[in-house]
Amino acid sequence: MIIRTANPQDHAAIWSIIGPVIGSGETYALERRMNETEALAYWFGADKQTFVAEHEGEILGTYYLRANQAGGGGHVCNAGFMTAANATGRGVARTMAQHAMAQAKVQGFLAMQFNLVVITNERAVRLWRSLGFETVGRLPRAFDHPTAGLVDALVMFRAL
Amino acid sequence: MIIRTANPQDHAAIWSIIGPVIGSGETYALERRMNETEALAYWFGADKQTFVAEHEGEILGTYYLRANQAGGGGHVCNAGFMTAANATGRGVARTMAQHAMAQAKVQGFLAMQFNLVVITNERAVRLWRSLGFETVGRLPRAFDHPTAGLVDALVMFRAL
Repeated sequence: MIIRTANPQDHAAIWSIIGPVIGSGETYALERRMNETEALAYWFGADKQTFVAEHEGEILGTYYLRANQAGGGGHVCNAGFMTAANATGRGVARTMAQHAMAQAKVQGFLAMQFNLVVITNERAVRLWRSLGFETVGRLPRAFDHPTAGLVDALVMFRAL
Repeated sequence: MIIRTANPQDHAAIWSIIGPVIGSGETYALERRMNETEALAYWFGADKQTFVAEHEGEILGTYYLRANQAGGGGHVCNAGFMTAANATGRGVARTMAQHAMAQAKVQGFLAMQFNLVVITNERAVRLWRSLGFETVGRLPRAFDHPTAGLVDALVMFRAL
């Protein structure tokens, strides 16, 4: 598996990954009805660097890296990771996260922060913990899950 | 003191308030060197409702209200408050915050969240606590203060 910068030729593959994740509304605080143009505009936003995980020509996952805040908060980065539905359990998210932390460190970021990890997203919580992220905050009922209703979300943080 | 929706005629007064606050870099995670056009574009962003506190024709403070996240996070709002340097200690921020909470509640928001309250901003921490906000998270060294260096920031939250 290699991780490389995403380019416009990856748009269709990226949409096939992020479309279902956004549409499910279960893990990301994003408008569920985003269409392809809107979703790609978000994922390739001017504030973001966008990467893909590729294996034998197939895109298995994608992530973005950005500063979490401007000004005095600019040394803390934020990232978002999505894995293709048919590629879960193969370490794609873990590999992308390790790449993201290395990239961020090289670029001078001192820490990485996840602002809203939905508590029902147990796979993600477990992965971030295993990668050294600590829960530094808990937002009560801050996420409206399509089936679970209002659930807590975690703020997770890791120095780089 | 009345609180009303801001309009373009308030731009100069608002810039005279937010310019020094942004430029100080002490309390908001915003690019310190923002010019007037950039700062007003931020403060009147499409995602925000912008208000002013006025007394006898003078603008004493300004605030914005917005959804803190999209999608499943859209029921939690965020707000930013700035008071004119010559109007501190007169309850302007408190009055604006109470107005913001009432506005947010009427609009259906279920909670208000501050994402990054710089720990050195003791006046703000005290005010939010007195208004019922709880510290639900602490971000280690997440803010680079121009004189204090890397300091912690709080995530504060209040149901409405």
